[in-house]
Amino acid sequence: MTLINNQDTTPTNHMSFCTELMKDYRFGQQQLIEIWGQACALAITKAYPLSSLAKKQPTVLVICGPDQNGSIGLVCARHLRMFEYEPTIYHPKRSSHSLHQDFTVQCEKMDIPFLSYLPTEVQLINDAYNVVIDAMLGPEADCSNIKEPYSGILVSLKQVKIPIISVDVPSGWDVEEPSQDGINPEVLISLTAPKKCAVSFSGKHFLAGRFLPYDIQKKYELNLPDYPGTDCLIEL
Amino acid sequence: MTLINNQDTTPTNHMSFCTELMKDYRFGQQQLIEIWGQACALAITKAYPLSSLAKKQPTVLVICGPDQNGSIGLVCARHLRMFEYEPTIYHPKRSSHSLHQDFTVQCEKMDIPFLSYLPTEVQLINDAYNVVIDAMLGPEADCSNIKEPYSGILVSLKQVKIPIISVDVPSGWDVEEPSQDGINPEVLISLTAPKKCAVSFSGKHFLAGRFLPYDIQKKYELNLPDYPGTDCLIEL
Repeated sequence: MTLINNQDTTPTNHMSFCTELMKDYRFGQQQLIEIWGQACALAITKAYPLSSLAKKQPTVLVICGPDQNGSIGLVCARHLRMFEYEPTIYHPKRSSHSLHQDFTVQCEKMDIPFLSYLPTEVQLINDAYNVVIDAMLGPEADCSNIKEPYSGILVSLKQVKIPIISVDVPSGWDVEEPSQDGINPEVLISLTAPKKCAVSFSGKHFLAGRFLPYDIQKKYELNLPDYPGTDCLIEL
Repeated sequence: MTLINNQDTTPTNHMSFCTELMKDYRFGQQQLIEIWGQACALAITKAYPLSSLAKKQPTVLVICGPDQNGSIGLVCARHLRMFEYEPTIYHPKRSSHSLHQDFTVQCEKMDIPFLSYLPTEVQLINDAYNVVIDAMLGPEADCSNIKEPYSGILVSLKQVKIPIISVDVPSGWDVEEPSQDGINPEVLISLTAPKKCAVSFSGKHFLAGRFLPYDIQKKYELNLPDYPGTDCLIEL
């Protein structure tokens, strides 16, 4: 689900309902990114509670892309910090969009460390962090033409031994179908509605972001499950 | 806590940290109103779970003011709708601020009913709703000079027999001290940090909105309690 930089994507139901949410329902980008980022953080606390982490320090590495998925990663990192995790952010290409910049500043001002480069030695990542959060490329990304630095990061992510949690779509996967030779996340957090590539996902799969008006769910035949109680996420 | 329309308020620590949040930390209004409104809805589900409501229909009346407190009420109503409550909104004076208008449209498009006037017969309110949410006047309001329609609404709220839940500051109260002859909410939801008037509040008191950076909490000596687990609210 993307609201910024949805260049040249095939029009699908998915894109149409995003447009409808923004235009007709007047949901705002800042508002939605906050909802999704918070929901991702909560999903991570469910999948990897503080008490379950292998390392003494509750470190997590959050890799943020240049567009909306990256901003969701920034919000997720900020909430994880409030939940007593120790996020570190790698955000190699920053957006010129003031909305994204604001989310970056919020993390910087909260003293969440930003890496200036990703260690080329994968073992250093395995040793330093409990999990990696992949908030790089969203559904709008053209997976047939992934450029640096993301292509290089994906090579590293295919080698890491610690669990990967992907936000919405595993980076490098086509949004329409699961990847055979891409990264292999242990957890996938689908935002608002699962994408086609998630259908046969065999890891832990969460749906997160409980705000979609019933009329939109019905109109686009999303058949979303009922969220339990007041939870903003559900394990599928 | 107010971010819009903070005209001529006495400068307090409270206002200074709001300014710092917006200017230095680059938090946005849309983002914060969403966080607060969602947290208010969660507080209401804690104080008045669906199963505890006296009436067959889980109806709640949300009275929204013209400024930020009103927008928080709108977001709260929207989330309550997602939690299977049946909110009805009374929003007599709408803001010309596009941010507030967007939050209004989100509720309208979700088919949440808006009242065009408040019944003058208080018994009708008692009969129709389980609780009233007071999201009228925030900390910035001048309680010595409350104009219509709010002065009239306050007269009604002093007579209703169903519980009132106030958002941040009970409408009509001075933010600095508890009111002796104002409305008497059963629940108060303090946003981010309790205001002075909440110190001796004898009803159920929640603190909601878990996002405040530690450095600000420390700088302004807020001494906030620790939120349990991943909760975004705590009963004080």
